[in-house]
Amino acid sequence: MARALVTLLSDFGTADGYVAEMKGMLLTEASEATVVDVSHDVAAQDVDGARLALARYWKRFPEGAIHVVVVDPGVGTERRAIAVESQRRFLVGPDNGVLSPALLAPGARIVSLPIPHSASATFHGRDVFIPAAVHLAQGHGFDALGPPVDDPIVRRTPEPRRAADGAIEGQVVTVDRFGNLITNLIGVRGGMAVVGKRVAPVRRTYGDVKPGELVALVGSSGLLEIAVRDGHAAATLGVRRGDAVTLRGGAGA
Amino acid sequence: MARALVTLLSDFGTADGYVAEMKGMLLTEASEATVVDVSHDVAAQDVDGARLALARYWKRFPEGAIHVVVVDPGVGTERRAIAVESQRRFLVGPDNGVLSPALLAPGARIVSLPIPHSASATFHGRDVFIPAAVHLAQGHGFDALGPPVDDPIVRRTPEPRRAADGAIEGQVVTVDRFGNLITNLIGVRGGMAVVGKRVAPVRRTYGDVKPGELVALVGSSGLLEIAVRDGHAAATLGVRRGDAVTLRGGAGA
Amino acid sequence: MARALVTLLSDFGTADGYVAEMKGMLLTEASEATVVDVSHDVAAQDVDGARLALARYWKRFPEGAIHVVVVDPGVGTERRAIAVESQRRFLVGPDNGVLSPALLAPGARIVSLPIPHSASATFHGRDVFIPAAVHLAQGHGFDALGPPVDDPIVRRTPEPRRAADGAIEGQVVTVDRFGNLITNLIGVRGGMAVVGKRVAPVRRTYGDVKPGELVALVGSSGLLEIAVRDGHAAATLGVRRGDAVTLRGGAGA
Repeated sequence: MARALVTLLSDFGTADGYVAEMKGMLLTEASEATVVDVSHDVAAQDVDGARLALARYWKRFPEGAIHVVVVDPGVGTERRAIAVESQRRFLVGPDNGVLSPALLAPGARIVSLPIPHSASATFHGRDVFIPAAVHLAQGHGFDALGPPVDDPIVRRTPEPRRAADGAIEGQVVTVDRFGNLITNLIGVRGGMAVVGKRVAPVRRTYGDVKPGELVALVGSSGLLEIAVRDGHAAATLGVRRGDAVTLRGGAGA
Repeated sequence: MARALVTLLSDFGTADGYVAEMKGMLLTEASEATVVDVSHDVAAQDVDGARLALARYWKRFPEGAIHVVVVDPGVGTERRAIAVESQRRFLVGPDNGVLSPALLAPGARIVSLPIPHSASATFHGRDVFIPAAVHLAQGHGFDALGPPVDDPIVRRTPEPRRAADGAIEGQVVTVDRFGNLITNLIGVRGGMAVVGKRVAPVRRTYGDVKPGELVALVGSSGLLEIAVRDGHAAATLGVRRGDAVTLRGGAGA
Repeated sequence: MARALVTLLSDFGTADGYVAEMKGMLLTEASEATVVDVSHDVAAQDVDGARLALARYWKRFPEGAIHVVVVDPGVGTERRAIAVESQRRFLVGPDNGVLSPALLAPGARIVSLPIPHSASATFHGRDVFIPAAVHLAQGHGFDALGPPVDDPIVRRTPEPRRAADGAIEGQVVTVDRFGNLITNLIGVRGGMAVVGKRVAPVRRTYGDVKPGELVALVGSSGLLEIAVRDGHAAATLGVRRGDAVTLRGGAGA
């Protein structure tokens, strides 16, 4: 068996030592595992932000990879803890929709993880999710983790709508570190994106406009993004996640 | 011998390249070592913050782990550099109390590290602590690192006091990334925590109160924490490290 | 062949999942590689900041190390993508001067990387630079990466000038996380550094002045730094990268 590969995504930050507790346990119980930090800088309790990040990376890792995701505002409540086998990768995390990209892929299998009586009510990353990752990293079977689940909570990115006048009405689904507005508009060719009272022409890349100008382009996941060249679109436009973006005069979905 | 495991905790941030210098030297001299980032986001010169983080993770890693801790406001002064063998783990860092969790464990042994004449006066992480970690990672003996020390500087979390009226008077020892107030009150069952003019009932988990409400609960290290559900208690209450927290009507220590 | 060692430096942050996409691809195609995070916290599009960090660490890693640097404001434009073999290390990144420390070393060889038609116009980290790093990590030859380049873009830290009165006029080249002002003054012995209307005596280390006082000292790369002991010089003095620093009454270059 190849060395197990375990990735970690959380909103814990690193300075408090919570993530190090998780890494220490993992490397104690599965000493040959390779641990990969995805991020611990997800905004606190931002389940949708983590879900969108996970959508980017979960299938980029090799088959057999174990993705641990701990963005878990409901920790200690009745919310279930789950593990998922999907597309020959494994995922472990809370049943709050954060694992939706893997849940929605064909053939996904889901189990419910036991919550030990000794588990802290505030830190299932350490007491529930890492133990499940250790189980998988040690090569034990997925089905032994717990009973099957057929009704996981799923969160979806909203679909754009086609308006009567032919425009496509979407929205900003996330803002990245550069201040670029990532929208839910896919397959866009030509036209212009309207955000509030501002218009961004659809171009191929940032360099197709002058520094400081607004531009829309198809980003690296196929979604239309709105950017200010060498600037920060979200701050410049005062736009946030969920705000409307309308595509006019172009093709898209 | 198993691959050496070296963890790194600092207040250096990563963007300036100081941490990368340390990793590069380590991987040059101990190429088989596994390097684990704990954090480089400790607040600048926050010795107590690093000490509390270390308390969480140092024994979670496997026996033989080498923990490098570089939060070192006194670098270049007469402060000693030390290494510690404690509970079958090794620790390396400045003699400023940051390693206290390991120093206070039974059987801890301490040595003083030499400061080479060529060492930079500002970067002992690179010039003193990583060389000691390399020595240990290469399997060389602990005692060969330097002469024994029997008077290391120790910093302790203050103990709570029992007041005449039976209340237990503690304090906030740290604020985590979620704004939760971690106190020095342990073994708490029932009652209520008083912070300034606000009262937080002791409950089992965040979900036992409504969003936006104050709650006290036993956190994942056994310490009483005060939180605002789905909020940021430190910002909401205007509370900082060192502020008083009093437990009334419950049991604790 | 030893395990390939690949380091990553970017301005992507980690929360959006871009870096994880890169790590996943790398570990899929070069599963034995060791991946080392240098930083993803470089300020957005700060080519000079990344260049100065790279100067610190690139030769600290073992021979054969592969350094991937993605700070790339010109992504998707006509700017070239390059790989460099220098001092028995490899570097991959945009041709915008960020790789200058390696380009300027004796014997550096440079090739131009192909940009596939399928490459995203916004994410060459994933579509151009990681594939080149994979090629090298798999042990394939450097020259097979692309045609040679003899005119890469080079950025240099400005040289200090000697004034008519014997003073040496330098500048702040970067501000580190502690607020220390790193200058371009090297080989400094004695004298005092003048920044705006403030004067910092040249001393050996922070502890040679009282808390809150200004001090100049030779930092861990041999450059003169200006610091406030236990404080943040850049904030205290209102000084930024590029501001003038003059050395009076001492020796330096």
